[in-house]
Amino acid sequence: MKKVAIYGASGYVGGELLRLLVTHKEVEIVAATSRRHAGQALTDVHPNLRGFTDLTFSNDTPQDVAGISDLVFFALPHCQSMALAAGIVGKTRIIDLAADFRLKNPETFMAAYKIEHANPGLISEFEYGMPETNMAALRHARNVANPGCFPTGALLALWPLAKAGLLKGETVVDSKTGSSGSGAEPSVGAHHPERAHDFRAYKIFAHQHQSEIEQGLGMAAGGNCPSRLTFVAHSAPMVRGIFTTAYAFLPREMEKGGVEALYREFYKGAPFVRIVPQSRSASVQGTNFCDIAIEQSGDRVVVTSAIDNLVKGAAGTAVQNMNILFGLDERAGLFTPGYHP
Amino acid sequence: MKKVAIYGASGYVGGELLRLLVTHKEVEIVAATSRRHAGQALTDVHPNLRGFTDLTFSNDTPQDVAGISDLVFFALPHCQSMALAAGIVGKTRIIDLAADFRLKNPETFMAAYKIEHANPGLISEFEYGMPETNMAALRHARNVANPGCFPTGALLALWPLAKAGLLKGETVVDSKTGSSGSGAEPSVGAHHPERAHDFRAYKIFAHQHQSEIEQGLGMAAGGNCPSRLTFVAHSAPMVRGIFTTAYAFLPREMEKGGVEALYREFYKGAPFVRIVPQSRSASVQGTNFCDIAIEQSGDRVVVTSAIDNLVKGAAGTAVQNMNILFGLDERAGLFTPGYHP
Amino acid sequence: MKKVAIYGASGYVGGELLRLLVTHKEVEIVAATSRRHAGQALTDVHPNLRGFTDLTFSNDTPQDVAGISDLVFFALPHCQSMALAAGIVGKTRIIDLAADFRLKNPETFMAAYKIEHANPGLISEFEYGMPETNMAALRHARNVANPGCFPTGALLALWPLAKAGLLKGETVVDSKTGSSGSGAEPSVGAHHPERAHDFRAYKIFAHQHQSEIEQGLGMAAGGNCPSRLTFVAHSAPMVRGIFTTAYAFLPREMEKGGVEALYREFYKGAPFVRIVPQSRSASVQGTNFCDIAIEQSGDRVVVTSAIDNLVKGAAGTAVQNMNILFGLDERAGLFTPGYHP
Amino acid sequence: MKKVAIYGASGYVGGELLRLLVTHKEVEIVAATSRRHAGQALTDVHPNLRGFTDLTFSNDTPQDVAGISDLVFFALPHCQSMALAAGIVGKTRIIDLAADFRLKNPETFMAAYKIEHANPGLISEFEYGMPETNMAALRHARNVANPGCFPTGALLALWPLAKAGLLKGETVVDSKTGSSGSGAEPSVGAHHPERAHDFRAYKIFAHQHQSEIEQGLGMAAGGNCPSRLTFVAHSAPMVRGIFTTAYAFLPREMEKGGVEALYREFYKGAPFVRIVPQSRSASVQGTNFCDIAIEQSGDRVVVTSAIDNLVKGAAGTAVQNMNILFGLDERAGLFTPGYHP
Repeated sequence: MKKVAIYGASGYVGGELLRLLVTHKEVEIVAATSRRHAGQALTDVHPNLRGFTDLTFSNDTPQDVAGISDLVFFALPHCQSMALAAGIVGKTRIIDLAADFRLKNPETFMAAYKIEHANPGLISEFEYGMPETNMAALRHARNVANPGCFPTGALLALWPLAKAGLLKGETVVDSKTGSSGSGAEPSVGAHHPERAHDFRAYKIFAHQHQSEIEQGLGMAAGGNCPSRLTFVAHSAPMVRGIFTTAYAFLPREMEKGGVEALYREFYKGAPFVRIVPQSRSASVQGTNFCDIAIEQSGDRVVVTSAIDNLVKGAAGTAVQNMNILFGLDERAGLFTPGYHP
Repeated sequence: MKKVAIYGASGYVGGELLRLLVTHKEVEIVAATSRRHAGQALTDVHPNLRGFTDLTFSNDTPQDVAGISDLVFFALPHCQSMALAAGIVGKTRIIDLAADFRLKNPETFMAAYKIEHANPGLISEFEYGMPETNMAALRHARNVANPGCFPTGALLALWPLAKAGLLKGETVVDSKTGSSGSGAEPSVGAHHPERAHDFRAYKIFAHQHQSEIEQGLGMAAGGNCPSRLTFVAHSAPMVRGIFTTAYAFLPREMEKGGVEALYREFYKGAPFVRIVPQSRSASVQGTNFCDIAIEQSGDRVVVTSAIDNLVKGAAGTAVQNMNILFGLDERAGLFTPGYHP
Repeated sequence: MKKVAIYGASGYVGGELLRLLVTHKEVEIVAATSRRHAGQALTDVHPNLRGFTDLTFSNDTPQDVAGISDLVFFALPHCQSMALAAGIVGKTRIIDLAADFRLKNPETFMAAYKIEHANPGLISEFEYGMPETNMAALRHARNVANPGCFPTGALLALWPLAKAGLLKGETVVDSKTGSSGSGAEPSVGAHHPERAHDFRAYKIFAHQHQSEIEQGLGMAAGGNCPSRLTFVAHSAPMVRGIFTTAYAFLPREMEKGGVEALYREFYKGAPFVRIVPQSRSASVQGTNFCDIAIEQSGDRVVVTSAIDNLVKGAAGTAVQNMNILFGLDERAGLFTPGYHP
Repeated sequence: MKKVAIYGASGYVGGELLRLLVTHKEVEIVAATSRRHAGQALTDVHPNLRGFTDLTFSNDTPQDVAGISDLVFFALPHCQSMALAAGIVGKTRIIDLAADFRLKNPETFMAAYKIEHANPGLISEFEYGMPETNMAALRHARNVANPGCFPTGALLALWPLAKAGLLKGETVVDSKTGSSGSGAEPSVGAHHPERAHDFRAYKIFAHQHQSEIEQGLGMAAGGNCPSRLTFVAHSAPMVRGIFTTAYAFLPREMEKGGVEALYREFYKGAPFVRIVPQSRSASVQGTNFCDIAIEQSGDRVVVTSAIDNLVKGAAGTAVQNMNILFGLDERAGLFTPGYHP
């Protein structure tokens, strides 16, 4: 029985980690921290967990939780773990769900997040945690930088093309997210009256996830990002889900079915990627699946992917990474169907 | 052309007043105040008004706006206007959309709102602004206390029964509101991820609108509230609308259709009450209508009413009251159909 | 490993049975029938199940499935199983999720469902399947009539009061359901444009579930229904969930907390009933839980309950009953937390 | 007072025409047809219109309605009006809201709609009804082919670029629509339980509106469509609205603000186009506005537009066209603000 701690457990991502871990057969939750809710029952904040845990939020330091656990999940707002993790790297395993250790280049990090990286020397201690594309490295990793939600949807949609050298020229990624991606803190943008019937784009040409997607496409292609990426994020009137529509222009026409065959081959060992006739955000809600559909017309390809932003886009992949780090079946505690309807 | 001012115009009720008044043919908006947004364009806060007004929010005092207007709407959070109105009663007309002047008895006010009334002597200067039940008094009123949203739905559903002496014993009012009733300020209860799929009851046996409904039923019956009222408010996963289900137990069996006939007679001159086979919140969205359906079985009656909480439950009735105070057709600027779907 | 079949597996309730059973460790699904979809993959109709089953819908007869299974779930529209079950009662176990065997009195059945019961002699072969209130009988039952969705919410909210002799006079049950209760067949009432912003009541004084609730309250009280029940069903703009607000008037005042203590005692052995400070439909979505909150004021009690209509209100309770019939832990395959948010 | 008829008035587009026309000061509705609902009150199907009309649906022929009206709106499913209009062209004015007369080339029509055009000779009798781009021709038109909903959003977003010769290479249009675009007829795709939480793409590389957008971009550029268009339509979980994200790649870099200046100049006389900082579907709900936002980065432009699919994308533009044909102010009956929230 492995011992795990969740540092920052009162938000939605922390809550999802708790939901997945309270029924996980191989791990025990030894701490769940929250400065604001310290002393309160977890179930006061996450009423869905009633009956599954008697834990209360603690106000532990990173050192405290490192000392009692085999692995610490950081589920904090961006740009906090880069400082907090410093004292405990090497003392426990870390899976960081924020952006702090995802970008290899500290200058790219600064351009994206508008803050200097607090510990650039630590970045190389973290492996990029996308099991479907980076499994070999993850098997030997100690610490993981868990991918961002939009990058997960975009990279799983485009990686096989990039790896096959089939991205060139312009690539467009049009992503649509549910409101839970904004977190548990109330805000005007996620205020129900404002959001419930509204569709809008935001941070056009200025979204912090652009460079993570470019870095990933470069990893896939074995070099720099092989095409110019135009990425636009949208707010959709739903709670969970990221639906990504990726437009790729191939260097040559492919025979009908050729691109889908490429994807089936690439993802054949990935239990959480399903190649489907039509991807739908509803079919993956609450699950760790990424459903991918491929449409091709001559030299043009439209790939759509659907994930749950809090699961495959955050806590689910983090648990999958934990399974890998611990040498467990990567599906442990995660392989359950979603709802219909 | 009458001049009107809106004191507190950045919230949802203030915004609805603006929406209704920018196209009203008989009035001109001379001021719209907001401390927080002073100097900003109205359309920065209410983007739906683009193309309809060039006004900016001002930081005027009540005295300022009283000096330049024939009528001032107060659209503030509860318990502010009772102090602010003091200096201007008599200098202009006032329609107050908060609860401050609705309850005739200051002790009832204190029990409901947990604060002592700042100017109990002023309460009698305000007429209860429910045109369908209080028209004669409103025609000669100078100041109006605009009814609450839940009381509007409940009282229009029960008034004819109370007036006919047909309420007795227990009366149950089960009301369901959309999230816009919580106002424009983000909160956990109206946070989209929390609210979008959720149904819940709140403030059971402790809702501040209970006493306003009781006072109204007493007005209808010509004395005290004629039955014991159990009122429960619910949050429904919708933006606009209050749907009220009222359960009444008559002192005697009525012949089939008798209750509906009573309602048709009572509301025959009321342009905004429609007796319908099935009331639906969607059919009144954005409008000043109250749709009422009556079902009867022996000595039991279930009356359902549907209103838009921001219009018939607030700004629409306020404009209707303004029309009455100004001697205009009560429908002016208000008589437009809602959407389908 | 027990073998089970689902007769009528293409609807929402059938789909939920499949979702719960594909990961159930103690049972194997041997058949899933659908006349319309015979030959198609289950995952064509229920895309959430991709990766969990390779089964196709069959066109088997009841006799066919009875011959190969230890238990058959009937998940058909009302008034079909009463004929279809006739040939197989005694040959396998049956859990019927329709209304056909719930009402003990065939005349009550006819009044509620407007059709003569095809096999009144079989009714007594079926035990009413509400484990929280009828466990002793279920342990020895062979066939189960699974409760209706509204009756589940209403009876779990009122049973302890009825059993304690505390219901009298008028009892009001105001229930609100999500659209999945209308089933998978498209209809005007559940057409997204019509439903998404709408709240309405339906079948007032004429709902088929009224008599099942009355029968249950009578079972609790040990005789006839101890008070007059006024039950109104409402359509809420959500997909899953039944939220019930039950208004009870006690024969005497109870001390503060007395009613809640009664409920805690009654449900202390029921793993799927949680007594909570505020019941919310969102907290039970996708789960077999019934969350109950109790508010009391003198001789008045308001009990609110929240369930997922497709799980606790249908398929989840059916699996719980199956566990009981098979002598398994009643929580097997069912004890998982819902989502937040 | 002009007399108008609506042929096919029971659907959502017909209902919106009724909603806009019952309060229009310059026209009288003389007939509203529906084969299925003939004899029923309009308000049975469109309950929002209660209090605004006593009309009943008729079962008139096109000839019947042509004989009594100055203008007939056809609001039928695609591919019916091309036959029905034949007998009445020249006898009255026609505004056709279906696709039948939009595409100038009958072969393009056949490729898009999979049916041979019934009256190709009539196509030239209809002017393409996009007032913002085609006003001069519309002032002298007798019959109008009202634009499609997706083409309206896409063309208003891209027309100024195409006209200025700034479209080249690849152009991507990613559009998201509400469920009302599927019409009033219940279907699996618009079934509330299936749609309420779902986001999906459909008809990729095969949508019938692709060629209308290409034709429009060609009209703008004064020749053929100047770039290769990749258009993908998506179903969003909302009722009203089309949000379009258009990605254009310019032949050269433009100075900052240059593209927005171009749009402001092009639309300066268009009362229903608003250039805004951020387009939002909620801000235009129920209105005839198209809100457009422009973001530019070097040689790349992302234009987003928001319309109400039933108003600016159908009935609103049709009434605007009617106003133009009748020589009225194009804003008559249409210039009202939407809701917030």
